Amino acid sequence: MIKLKLKLEVLKNSKSNLGKSLENDINLTNNYYLNNGIAVIYKKPTPVQVVRVNYPSRARCQITEAYYKTPSTTDYNGVFNGYYIDFDVKETHSKTAFPLSNIKPHQIAHLERVFHSGGVAFLIINFCQHSEYFILSYRSYLKFLSEFTTRKSIPRSFFKENCFLINYGYHPRLDYLQVIKNNLSCFIKNE
Amino acid sequence: MIKLKLKLEVLKNSKSNLGKSLENDINLTNNYYLNNGIAVIYKKPTPVQVVRVNYPSRARCQITEAYYKTPSTTDYNGVFNGYYIDFDVKETHSKTAFPLSNIKPHQIAHLERVFHSGGVAFLIINFCQHSEYFILSYRSYLKFLSEFTTRKSIPRSFFKENCFLINYGYHPRLDYLQVIKNNLSCFIKNE
Repeated sequence: MIKLKLKLEVLKNSKSNLGKSLENDINLTNNYYLNNGIAVIYKKPTPVQVVRVNYPSRARCQITEAYYKTPSTTDYNGVFNGYYIDFDVKETHSKTAFPLSNIKPHQIAHLERVFHSGGVAFLIINFCQHSEYFILSYRSYLKFLSEFTTRKSIPRSFFKENCFLINYGYHPRLDYLQVIKNNLSCFIKNE
Repeated sequence: MIKLKLKLEVLKNSKSNLGKSLENDINLTNNYYLNNGIAVIYKKPTPVQVVRVNYPSRARCQITEAYYKTPSTTDYNGVFNGYYIDFDVKETHSKTAFPLSNIKPHQIAHLERVFHSGGVAFLIINFCQHSEYFILSYRSYLKFLSEFTTRKSIPRSFFKENCFLINYGYHPRLDYLQVIKNNLSCFIKNE
């Protein structure tokens, strides 16, 4: 019984950390880009609805009641070589496919708008079991939808054939901008 | 005595609303751009450091202790015609000049990085007493610094000679992207 509880606890913790290590790798990569003058890309703060505040001292405002709001965009955006960059990061523990339900409707709506405004819109997807990091451009996402109208997940084989792999490195961790730079026409709208 | 208190209260309220009406006009303008497929520009959420949370029900997470953090960037960014747009909005009640102390060092550092990465970086400044809205490009800001090394404020005359006026309208309220579109070379870095 104790063993089962422990196992559940470990499972819960690993669930709550889901996506955190990928986020951390991307944040480190963005810091590297910023410090080396390569690009200016930030993670957006999580929007919070503040209900009540308190002033324990004149200098400091303490928030005493607030709630997380659903963001209307993706998590990351910025500028690289004059291009507008906009993306979100996702992880899957599945060995064979990435469930489409992992992408929220507001995220897709936002990436679509960005793509049509001439920006570079994509998702970075980590197949944890294979330690693989793919860039799924908005363009490839559209291709998948048009070819597989009824599927509820994108098979790993589709990623292998239609997406770009990011190598995991030390400094920077996940050099996704190098991949985008080398394949820019696959990411932006045709004029 | 009561009259004085009332006066102070009015002053305090008008101070706390400082910048709110300009922000509101910019938010309405950005909504117009978004709904008409012209551009995708959002105000970034204010970053909050969450210290303690509570779960009054399984479905909802309530933040019970948090503090505002100083942002490391500007308030607004997004994409327009493939260009990365990044700016902040400022108001001054002075009739003659805009105090440089209104611009925070982190905001200038950020606009500089954006400019060098090929983005469109600027400030929208409202001279409230004249109902005038100027776009101060990062380029014009540099020009001011090089010409007037000791001044602590930018005189209104500099704005009139070196900056672009935005007309106040109904729908959209402040069509700043039209001004940028017509004068793009003044905003971006030379190749």
